[in-house]
Amino acid sequence: MGFIIDGKIIARSIKEDIKEQVNSLRENKYIPKLAIVRIGDNSSDISYEKSIVKACADVNIETEKITLDNDIDTTKLQNIIKLLNDRDDITGIIVFRPFPSNIDENLIRNTIDIDKDVDCMHPINLERIFEGDYTGFTPSTSKAALLALIKSGVELEGKKIAIINRSMVVGKPLAMMLLSNNATVTICHSKTKDLKSITRSSDIVITALGRAKYLDKDYFNKDSIVIDVGVSLDSDGKISGDVDFSDVLDNVKMLTPVPGGVGSITTCVLLENTIKAALKQRTLI
Amino acid sequence: MGFIIDGKIIARSIKEDIKEQVNSLRENKYIPKLAIVRIGDNSSDISYEKSIVKACADVNIETEKITLDNDIDTTKLQNIIKLLNDRDDITGIIVFRPFPSNIDENLIRNTIDIDKDVDCMHPINLERIFEGDYTGFTPSTSKAALLALIKSGVELEGKKIAIINRSMVVGKPLAMMLLSNNATVTICHSKTKDLKSITRSSDIVITALGRAKYLDKDYFNKDSIVIDVGVSLDSDGKISGDVDFSDVLDNVKMLTPVPGGVGSITTCVLLENTIKAALKQRTLI
Repeated sequence: MGFIIDGKIIARSIKEDIKEQVNSLRENKYIPKLAIVRIGDNSSDISYEKSIVKACADVNIETEKITLDNDIDTTKLQNIIKLLNDRDDITGIIVFRPFPSNIDENLIRNTIDIDKDVDCMHPINLERIFEGDYTGFTPSTSKAALLALIKSGVELEGKKIAIINRSMVVGKPLAMMLLSNNATVTICHSKTKDLKSITRSSDIVITALGRAKYLDKDYFNKDSIVIDVGVSLDSDGKISGDVDFSDVLDNVKMLTPVPGGVGSITTCVLLENTIKAALKQRTLI
Repeated sequence: MGFIIDGKIIARSIKEDIKEQVNSLRENKYIPKLAIVRIGDNSSDISYEKSIVKACADVNIETEKITLDNDIDTTKLQNIIKLLNDRDDITGIIVFRPFPSNIDENLIRNTIDIDKDVDCMHPINLERIFEGDYTGFTPSTSKAALLALIKSGVELEGKKIAIINRSMVVGKPLAMMLLSNNATVTICHSKTKDLKSITRSSDIVITALGRAKYLDKDYFNKDSIVIDVGVSLDSDGKISGDVDFSDVLDNVKMLTPVPGGVGSITTCVLLENTIKAALKQRTLI
């Protein structure tokens, strides 16, 4: 049977490290504080907000919730972000996306202080990832997939890795991070032909298709390491990854479950970024 | 025998298109003008400058050469670029790289007006490429490799393409452009294991290794389309690509020569970018 990579265990160990860092900052009278900006009240945003607030509380990071009406315009949202940029007590800012359609996303992305941009939204921070420069922040989901591998002791140098996703929130930043780790990366997507032959001949497969149980054991080999970033509902209405877990587990080397895999690590990346932002602010004082 | 992709013929046809566009701008009393900033006088910069001036003259784009001492400091260089940013008659700017070691490259890259940045140096323009947004400019060499394929009628959608290079001037931007064209892209580099099996199983191979005649026919299959971006000297001191041309040509479908291949198209991309910049300035008037 393949080894199940437990995202919750990885998350716990990352959180312990972060808590130590926060406590050491607090001993120096420096308190990291994350501003969480939510527009409107759709249920997934509210549940994400709750999980962030709880995760921050767990590691002694303070939070401030800013809740805005769904019909806010771009200029007003920019002004709110600018106020947060200017406040010394706010060390990091996350603005939930996607934005309502009346908001100019590009203007908002360019408004956030690049040193408080814990969700890696500003083009300058994304461009750093493109260059392999990790002095800025990292997109949460891409970094969580990377951490699932690294924290499981998987060596990346020289490995053939297939990524099934080419978005700016998963596939592209992840490809750049894997290249920085000296992996050979293939980026696959909906137009890829003969996906099976590509995934079968890869050492590691990272998938973020969003199609429940789409990948069965034929897509892998017995030494495959499989990181499942997909989250969708299966035909029984249950949360499922892209991988048909019960079919695949016996036929690969390592596999992340859904839920309890990469998703459990995502919030930790936000916490890591929040500490990084706090340290950036600290050097500015 | 494989088909030889003739970069000079492709370049000629692109230049004709550009010349028409310039003439139509000139009829409207609007004259594109490229500022070429060269620091110091190493011979490759001087020869690049000459080729740009000639190419611009061929298509009726005006040029202005700015030659600076090798010991110029960052602030002075920034001030010169700012003056060029502010001049209405200058519609595009290229500053030759690499910079002398005393220059802060990052500050310079961020100084150039993003709408005059015909060499795609500004992080904002590079980030656009990362996102698949082509409203900005494109790095010359990456785009030249892409044009060698497109202008030869090569269909890219669904094709497996191996790129041997992961730099910011060739491999990474090229990978993003090929993804935008719905190709499946594998990025290879010095740490890649079993390169041969990857290139042999690809439909298209684009190489920018810089090792003369490194790739012989064993790296390809009879249907391979090979784009050679490498330029180096072989053991006889002759300019050569990465591909052992005489060994490979009979055993693949299409191949670019060196010289006379991708290199011949590179300057055309700079001209295309210069027209694009001129049109951006025009909308600002």
